[in-house]
Amino acid sequence: MEREFIDQFRRTQAADPRVPLGVGDDAAVIQLAGTKCVAAVDTITDEVDFLLEECDPQLIGRKALAVNLSDMAAMAATPVAALVSLLLPQQGGMKLAHEITTGLTTLAEQYGVAIAGGDTNSWSGKLAVSVTVLGEPPPTGVLQRNAAQVGQAVLVTGPLGGSILGKHFTFDPRVKEAVVLRSDYHATAAIDVSDGLLIDSSRLARESGLGVVLDLSRIPLAPAANTLARQTGKTPLDHALADGEDFEIVFTTSVDQAQRLLQDQPFPTPITQIGEVIAEPGLWQAKATGPTPLAARGFEHRLE
Amino acid sequence: MEREFIDQFRRTQAADPRVPLGVGDDAAVIQLAGTKCVAAVDTITDEVDFLLEECDPQLIGRKALAVNLSDMAAMAATPVAALVSLLLPQQGGMKLAHEITTGLTTLAEQYGVAIAGGDTNSWSGKLAVSVTVLGEPPPTGVLQRNAAQVGQAVLVTGPLGGSILGKHFTFDPRVKEAVVLRSDYHATAAIDVSDGLLIDSSRLARESGLGVVLDLSRIPLAPAANTLARQTGKTPLDHALADGEDFEIVFTTSVDQAQRLLQDQPFPTPITQIGEVIAEPGLWQAKATGPTPLAARGFEHRLE
Repeated sequence: MEREFIDQFRRTQAADPRVPLGVGDDAAVIQLAGTKCVAAVDTITDEVDFLLEECDPQLIGRKALAVNLSDMAAMAATPVAALVSLLLPQQGGMKLAHEITTGLTTLAEQYGVAIAGGDTNSWSGKLAVSVTVLGEPPPTGVLQRNAAQVGQAVLVTGPLGGSILGKHFTFDPRVKEAVVLRSDYHATAAIDVSDGLLIDSSRLARESGLGVVLDLSRIPLAPAANTLARQTGKTPLDHALADGEDFEIVFTTSVDQAQRLLQDQPFPTPITQIGEVIAEPGLWQAKATGPTPLAARGFEHRLE
Repeated sequence: MEREFIDQFRRTQAADPRVPLGVGDDAAVIQLAGTKCVAAVDTITDEVDFLLEECDPQLIGRKALAVNLSDMAAMAATPVAALVSLLLPQQGGMKLAHEITTGLTTLAEQYGVAIAGGDTNSWSGKLAVSVTVLGEPPPTGVLQRNAAQVGQAVLVTGPLGGSILGKHFTFDPRVKEAVVLRSDYHATAAIDVSDGLLIDSSRLARESGLGVVLDLSRIPLAPAANTLARQTGKTPLDHALADGEDFEIVFTTSVDQAQRLLQDQPFPTPITQIGEVIAEPGLWQAKATGPTPLAARGFEHRLE
């Protein structure tokens, strides 16, 4: 029964001053530091974002929250609370709900996020987990996609490619890194790599009304990109450019700030410059002869 | 394609000062009046909350938002913005997304709610629509379920029963009414009737650690309760007590305030006193001989 599940959940949650009213009423009340609320929702589904038959449900719960924390990171926002909506298959729904919630709350604790509310639904369909995260903007305002400037450097956190081999479940959303990039290195625009470096870079360029030139020789390759390339016959670079779900942050900042950042390397994860912003709209590849058009391959959500 | 849909949606949305950053970035920014955010999420699904084959998708979109607005009403909160997550079947998903969004945005405009963000997902499963609503608490704090007091009156907005005949799609969430009930008539506790008057009244009683005695002769019967009773062989009262999805507000206030409210009848929808709060926990039926236990029949979400 849903009530049992909610009662159990309420008993295990510690009181949190940021959630004066949590799970159990018609809505939750969340205490924010200011009057601006940063909000994102993302739903992950069986057979698209995971295979329920083949994976640990705790990883599904973790991922459902992590993709939203990554959206917060892409805004340099600090997540405060999450609401969770579960669509559960009729068979084994209660057990599944517990396992998903365990994975989700473990990550929530690591990131200081309170689970403020949600709903559970049993249906004849497949498993889907929808999470809404609410957060606070940084003092200098959120990091939008549309504020890159001509001449600025394009950089990325972490190495890329082959996330399907495991990272798409276990990635660390770059929340703290993004806050520092915004406050200490004056990052101007950002997006998280969810659909692939090429597609997501082209989105940042498009929203800024400018172009991004990538230097393909500088793209940081994850070990998994090499491993996967041996299985697929593609190159590791292909995987780094077009694989989705790396959940690293692509961002822009001035050349001076970028130099300082590359020298400081203030995070456990490396920061790499991968390109620059130009006036000519679109996605480009750096060549000795100048920028050459680059197709934005990757994962596109399609509606028919 | 998702991008086309989002681009179209962005073009049709007017700029709204309460949403400084809306659909199109990694997250939305919502401007609230204070630092407290009231948040609710509710998901409606094919074959549970509607039958896609038999109904107008605009009504599905309307209902997905309306159930959340009803949650805001149950808190006496004023909704400000909504985030929408669509799980769309692969066939005809784009058309469906447009129709659902049309129904949803029409109701949003009526209630002054901005659509701040969301995501669309195409999958091999059935249709589900998840909405998160963010709102502002009333000046005297939200109307919780747990603050009923012994001796107070139990009242309800509107008439009840037979909502399956149409009202479950077309109901008007009691947002404005609830704000007035909180501010002008000092309502102390409330819940919306989503799973049935008996179940929802018993929840209010349970959260308050008290009992609710209902006077069954005073339950306001909707015309649809009579119509449905002729089809089912049950009584109209059975339907008023146990049918879900009336989305009226059950609330408590002092006897003095209740008398004033019943005299004023300040809303187009009638207010009826249906019972009172007693110290003995549980749900009770008023009889000449005193309170008699009443079983909380209605719709319970079950997880197996």
